[in-house]
Amino acid sequence: MWEARAPSKQTSFVEIKKAIITAAGKNQRTLPLQTLVDRDSASKTALAIIVEEVMKAGVEEICVVVRPGDQAAYRVAAGPHANRVQFVEQAESLGYGHAVHCAKEFSGDQPFLLLVGDHLYLTREAKNCAQQLVEVAKAEACAVSAVQATHESKLPYYGAVGGHLVPGRQRLYQVESVLEKPTPTEAEQKLIVPGLRAGRYLCFFGMHVLTPPVMQLLGEAIASTKTGVQLSAALNRLAAKERYLALELRGRRYDIGVKYGLLTAQLALAFDGKDRDEVMSGLVEMLALKGE
Amino acid sequence: MWEARAPSKQTSFVEIKKAIITAAGKNQRTLPLQTLVDRDSASKTALAIIVEEVMKAGVEEICVVVRPGDQAAYRVAAGPHANRVQFVEQAESLGYGHAVHCAKEFSGDQPFLLLVGDHLYLTREAKNCAQQLVEVAKAEACAVSAVQATHESKLPYYGAVGGHLVPGRQRLYQVESVLEKPTPTEAEQKLIVPGLRAGRYLCFFGMHVLTPPVMQLLGEAIASTKTGVQLSAALNRLAAKERYLALELRGRRYDIGVKYGLLTAQLALAFDGKDRDEVMSGLVEMLALKGE
Repeated sequence: MWEARAPSKQTSFVEIKKAIITAAGKNQRTLPLQTLVDRDSASKTALAIIVEEVMKAGVEEICVVVRPGDQAAYRVAAGPHANRVQFVEQAESLGYGHAVHCAKEFSGDQPFLLLVGDHLYLTREAKNCAQQLVEVAKAEACAVSAVQATHESKLPYYGAVGGHLVPGRQRLYQVESVLEKPTPTEAEQKLIVPGLRAGRYLCFFGMHVLTPPVMQLLGEAIASTKTGVQLSAALNRLAAKERYLALELRGRRYDIGVKYGLLTAQLALAFDGKDRDEVMSGLVEMLALKGE
Repeated sequence: MWEARAPSKQTSFVEIKKAIITAAGKNQRTLPLQTLVDRDSASKTALAIIVEEVMKAGVEEICVVVRPGDQAAYRVAAGPHANRVQFVEQAESLGYGHAVHCAKEFSGDQPFLLLVGDHLYLTREAKNCAQQLVEVAKAEACAVSAVQATHESKLPYYGAVGGHLVPGRQRLYQVESVLEKPTPTEAEQKLIVPGLRAGRYLCFFGMHVLTPPVMQLLGEAIASTKTGVQLSAALNRLAAKERYLALELRGRRYDIGVKYGLLTAQLALAFDGKDRDEVMSGLVEMLALKGE
């Protein structure tokens, strides 16, 4: 048991002080600027909510990947922690992996937390989603992706991982392969994870702790292809190269980019927060409203 | 009865082809950029929803009063009718009346529809709120403000009018005085409207059809005061000068600038629109969710 705690690993893995948030997608660029009322009853942009999430996990510097021209609006939207936020521009839409690679200079030789700018994360645990992930990444001293057991009908929307439970652990998996938006046949052949319910796969949650080799793998992918640089393909190569884990977080993610995504995220925040009773009674009033 | 229709008035009042939308308020500037799903199930910015509302009422040219630097984002947010939209900048926060006056060149010698950029309007009538108002203004050939019978507890938030029903008409009032955010005592002394329920006053709905003399009155107010130029004060003077009516619209307004205003507006749109069943079942699912 003593050896299993691997103290050397804990000390060799530096703190995770940097986070990259991507917000350069064509249909995503205005999403981080949307306003929501957070669980603490304060009105904030989606970006400010995400920034708070990562700051609580110990991050000190944030790099947001934006489209050219979006910096000014984002700086305002970043809220009270704007001084911790810097920007890098993705001039062309060359895929999610390319967007991440735009922040290569920022992350340098350090591990980094990676989030998408159009998702919000909610948990009823004392530790938020980013904290749960960062804690495991530091203890295990390797790259860790947050995943969620997801029904096969949703495979067309996500990257998914195959692998097996880390012996003696719950919710923590050794990743063996990664596929972007696999077909059901591909998933059945390559991504079955022993212990999950039938028809479920471990799909990405939109939050990762990644290591410098990922930037290198992305750089190689960019050199060999002109478009559609996938993060999943680089992570698949990472799994063959170094220890790479997946963690089933205790929490939910809300994609604010889908139709009614903002509504759903706002209701989720409200139902879980300080204003629950007020919002509930407002809702009942609206449902009872005999409008003219 | 024949004379009462006053055909000369109908022809002397030109069509209402221009609309002014104010969006330069300190805490309001990002509100028209917020995204909602409209009743037709399409995702749009609040600005695009307002622009559609006024276009349906026959408006052909729109002037949005913005803060310097906001034009680019607003042009994108205006959506498919962006070619009908022009901008004028309000460089200093000198009050709502001053913001309206910034569009004086735009409106020129024509009547204009005036809306605030941080409200959405909903009705279950065949004609939308702007259409109902414009129709009455054209038929009556004078300035008309949309009003709503409002409980006295909400007087601190609105401009309110005093007056009496136009003989033989329902929901249409001759305005005798206008007060901005009156105290209950002021309201009781000056704004009692015969026929309204006790404790109710006619408060502005955020939508007006105004005439060129209003711009002149605003200009005079600006010349004599340095700050806090009120539209209500100018309208009070208008009521003493020319025929000025108030119309109780059949509809509801949603202020998206108040806390949970966006949530409430989005739910109202959804409950009244195409996606009602989908949103209802999503809501039930969320309420039943045993989250982790």
